[in-house]
Amino acid sequence: MSKQADLAPQEIEAASFAIIEREFGERTGLKVTDFSREEFAVIRRVIHATADFSFAHSLRFHPLAIATAIARLRAGRAVATDVNMTAAGISKAGLAAWGCPVICELGGPPPAAGRAGEGGRTRAELGILAALARQPGIVAIGNAPTALLAVIDYCQRRADAFDGVVIGAPVGFVNALESKEMLSGLDIPHLTPLGRKGGSPVAAAIVNALIRLAGEGS
Amino acid sequence: MSKQADLAPQEIEAASFAIIEREFGERTGLKVTDFSREEFAVIRRVIHATADFSFAHSLRFHPLAIATAIARLRAGRAVATDVNMTAAGISKAGLAAWGCPVICELGGPPPAAGRAGEGGRTRAELGILAALARQPGIVAIGNAPTALLAVIDYCQRRADAFDGVVIGAPVGFVNALESKEMLSGLDIPHLTPLGRKGGSPVAAAIVNALIRLAGEGS
Repeated sequence: MSKQADLAPQEIEAASFAIIEREFGERTGLKVTDFSREEFAVIRRVIHATADFSFAHSLRFHPLAIATAIARLRAGRAVATDVNMTAAGISKAGLAAWGCPVICELGGPPPAAGRAGEGGRTRAELGILAALARQPGIVAIGNAPTALLAVIDYCQRRADAFDGVVIGAPVGFVNALESKEMLSGLDIPHLTPLGRKGGSPVAAAIVNALIRLAGEGS
Repeated sequence: MSKQADLAPQEIEAASFAIIEREFGERTGLKVTDFSREEFAVIRRVIHATADFSFAHSLRFHPLAIATAIARLRAGRAVATDVNMTAAGISKAGLAAWGCPVICELGGPPPAAGRAGEGGRTRAELGILAALARQPGIVAIGNAPTALLAVIDYCQRRADAFDGVVIGAPVGFVNALESKEMLSGLDIPHLTPLGRKGGSPVAAAIVNALIRLAGEGS
């Protein structure tokens, strides 16, 4: 460990990526070349963030997802998140090149009184609806299945209201799996790890991989 | 899904916990009763945050960890974190009962010029050393192995400088496993998931479970 403990941060990332690439075949039964270069860049960063190779199997890429995300980032569009943890994990330094803001409306006002009758909307659900009104280019859901369901409902009701990419990575035992299955069946550009696993580091890692790709040759 | 989609947030948590308890034996080969009630409360919340039952095997509890954490929380001591993502995941509402602040010095000043010769200390490492000077009762490392190694070094150099609990949950391929192995061999109250897995949601879930336990009967 003594040798590795002296590595600079960028060297730690490079060393991690090298380990992931070396172990990828054995741990997943897949080959790096089973994916496009851009897809593998996303998978590798998610594994880096979680130390969990199972995401190589669960990640689904809509065919327009990566190209659309790169275009929206380069156009300076906002990245909206469901919770502060996802927002905290996104590289602000990377986004600065294009002036993209990160927005998370979770801290907004509590549900209006009239909403009470609709029965217990989560704060994340209300927050993401407020963020969608600000026309983000990427919506990254790292925690709340209710927020992802709200995004899906929003996109289905207003087909041309959203021209961005949905990163659907909620985690958990109630509706996480189901909401991601639903997203993966829709013709909205999306990236999503199917199943119960996900989380704010997964959502942030996907966004950060897309930021890195958008920065290449731009 | 329609029935579950109508659940209120506290009902979602209860439903998730019920699923975890129902599947626990089959997915882990362990029994709920293999753990103390308090230990299982921590394990259950980590599984809830990750949808990953493997933490039932990897979590290590120093015998004084839970009691010490409860005492420090009830005394209003600070919770220090390595990164903003971990800080963002900790329940501020839960901590409000005792007035415990959450501190994360990651945004602090860059390394002083004199440090440059020491060769690439990470921002997280420098930040956690600044946080330790503020005498936190809990130190929660959810991302950076370098930060955990800095905490271990700090505790070993000054045996009575730290009277709290270390939550050691860095994630990754370079030094995460090694730093947690090192922590688990020390007689400092600690909770740590051995191996490569961890992350800010794991560290935050452990802290949030401890907050819940500290609130019982206080």
